[in-house]
Amino acid sequence: MQKQQDLYPTRIDDQPRIVDRVDPVVYSDPVTRGPLDYAQLDDFEHKGFLHVPEFFSGDTVATLQDALHHTRQAEAGSGRAEVVEEPDSGEVRSVFAVHRDYPVFGELCRDQRLLRAVFQLLGSDAYIHQSRINFKPGFRGKEFYWHSDFETWHAEDGMPRMRAVSCLIPMTPNNQYNGALMLIPGSHRHYISCVGETPQNHYKQSLKQQRTGVPDDDSLRWLVDKYGIEAPATGPGSVLFFDCNVMHGSNSNISPFPRSNVFMVFNSVYNTLQAPFSADSPRPEFLATRQPRPLGADKTAPTPAASRRSHAI
Amino acid sequence: MQKQQDLYPTRIDDQPRIVDRVDPVVYSDPVTRGPLDYAQLDDFEHKGFLHVPEFFSGDTVATLQDALHHTRQAEAGSGRAEVVEEPDSGEVRSVFAVHRDYPVFGELCRDQRLLRAVFQLLGSDAYIHQSRINFKPGFRGKEFYWHSDFETWHAEDGMPRMRAVSCLIPMTPNNQYNGALMLIPGSHRHYISCVGETPQNHYKQSLKQQRTGVPDDDSLRWLVDKYGIEAPATGPGSVLFFDCNVMHGSNSNISPFPRSNVFMVFNSVYNTLQAPFSADSPRPEFLATRQPRPLGADKTAPTPAASRRSHAI
Repeated sequence: MQKQQDLYPTRIDDQPRIVDRVDPVVYSDPVTRGPLDYAQLDDFEHKGFLHVPEFFSGDTVATLQDALHHTRQAEAGSGRAEVVEEPDSGEVRSVFAVHRDYPVFGELCRDQRLLRAVFQLLGSDAYIHQSRINFKPGFRGKEFYWHSDFETWHAEDGMPRMRAVSCLIPMTPNNQYNGALMLIPGSHRHYISCVGETPQNHYKQSLKQQRTGVPDDDSLRWLVDKYGIEAPATGPGSVLFFDCNVMHGSNSNISPFPRSNVFMVFNSVYNTLQAPFSADSPRPEFLATRQPRPLGADKTAPTPAASRRSHAI
Repeated sequence: MQKQQDLYPTRIDDQPRIVDRVDPVVYSDPVTRGPLDYAQLDDFEHKGFLHVPEFFSGDTVATLQDALHHTRQAEAGSGRAEVVEEPDSGEVRSVFAVHRDYPVFGELCRDQRLLRAVFQLLGSDAYIHQSRINFKPGFRGKEFYWHSDFETWHAEDGMPRMRAVSCLIPMTPNNQYNGALMLIPGSHRHYISCVGETPQNHYKQSLKQQRTGVPDDDSLRWLVDKYGIEAPATGPGSVLFFDCNVMHGSNSNISPFPRSNVFMVFNSVYNTLQAPFSADSPRPEFLATRQPRPLGADKTAPTPAASRRSHAI
């Protein structure tokens, strides 16, 4: 596998550092038609995330919730590599590659409205880089520590540029009691280069609790001092779009309410994976798609040039 | 040590159960003079807690914050029994008996306004049953799981009745990002009898992570379904009064902001400790005062009968 120039080095130096983002945030022209209006694209550009309530109908949500319930039951104790358990309780914490293994989630990632929104953000056709359900069970759900997804995808999967977007699709309410996602708005414009070499087969441990690719305290404090924290309350029907490099994490969940979310990560077809930038070998296909199948965004939308810079806002 | 009739059995049966509270919540007559007005006493009666903003002056807060900082520095690595460290990071999580060991906190528990409010709630003079600072450091502060303080004080310390109140005195903001205290309003009217025998010297482990005296999932779900959860945002200058039996806990803290609170637990002089109700031997003095020193509530307030029932609201 060829390796492009490394614009976002990480896990190489012995000191953390903060690197400026050189990639656009919103890739399409602001007049590109789609479900997101100009103000929403502007929000995403500035904050690195966008909460859109009432994106999906009640029927769609009910179908997804049924599938979620089924998936959880089917995967409890399955022992499959795609399934990650809570460190202490052994309950199902995450299931990966649900778009591949469960037809309902396969359909979800081809939802035309979702794809058109993704097209507006990425400015190109896209494919699923990763899909997963995070369950975060009630009572004993553990935290997800602060991280930039892109740091891991770059280091361990070889994603060259910041041109991917995550869609968090809530299956339960996410609120201040059950460990809602916290984001640092604006943090997507800075890349925290982390210290520590990637261990072999790091993913087997990192999916339970990450130890490499963890941003240092000083950089996190710098980001929060500069930008603060937001934790949008969300729930079924909504979509939270967030940039691949926005710093995010969540606290534990001792409430009785599970906090279950489906994640679909769309990557631009112009940003396919290379050799990992800071790991010996790439992670398995269920964590990072190396055989992309473009999803075919709405053909009625104009196609901007692949290398187009972000529109000025 | 004599042992009264056990009105709140716990850690005895092999099935959890929910027992009705037989004790009053607010013990004094509602016309008792003091800093809390009728509406506030009513709130406390119904919810089991009361948030009072701007209780302390800025000068008092600054003095307390200085003392807090000093205490943390003095106790880091001190190895004293009074100091509890975070399970993973080894940072100072709690320091007990600060009213005894640090003059500033000794003065705090004799603050006349605080004592008059406590008198209004407990209907008698009081003494410090326990004092502590909980630091919950930023980035790596772990959760405090759901518990009723009274359950432990009854089982392990021999506190006979529900006639004690905790004053949470925030030294930093407590908000949705740094693991603010969550309470179940109304839960103080029910006693969750827990399963599992108290191990010898249980406190040495339980202060880091409690395993005995932990309410079961079904009872917690029942309480939350009935009453919901509240997590009052609070900060320096405020006091959060909460009943000894209100169910409470808090999530972890991955934010950069420490969540530091001073706790002063006042127990009625008519409710002094007996032999533990569900443990072989009592916990040490720094966790549970067996040599009470009444604090002398304001003599201008009328003294109601010791056994007075709660006023009807």
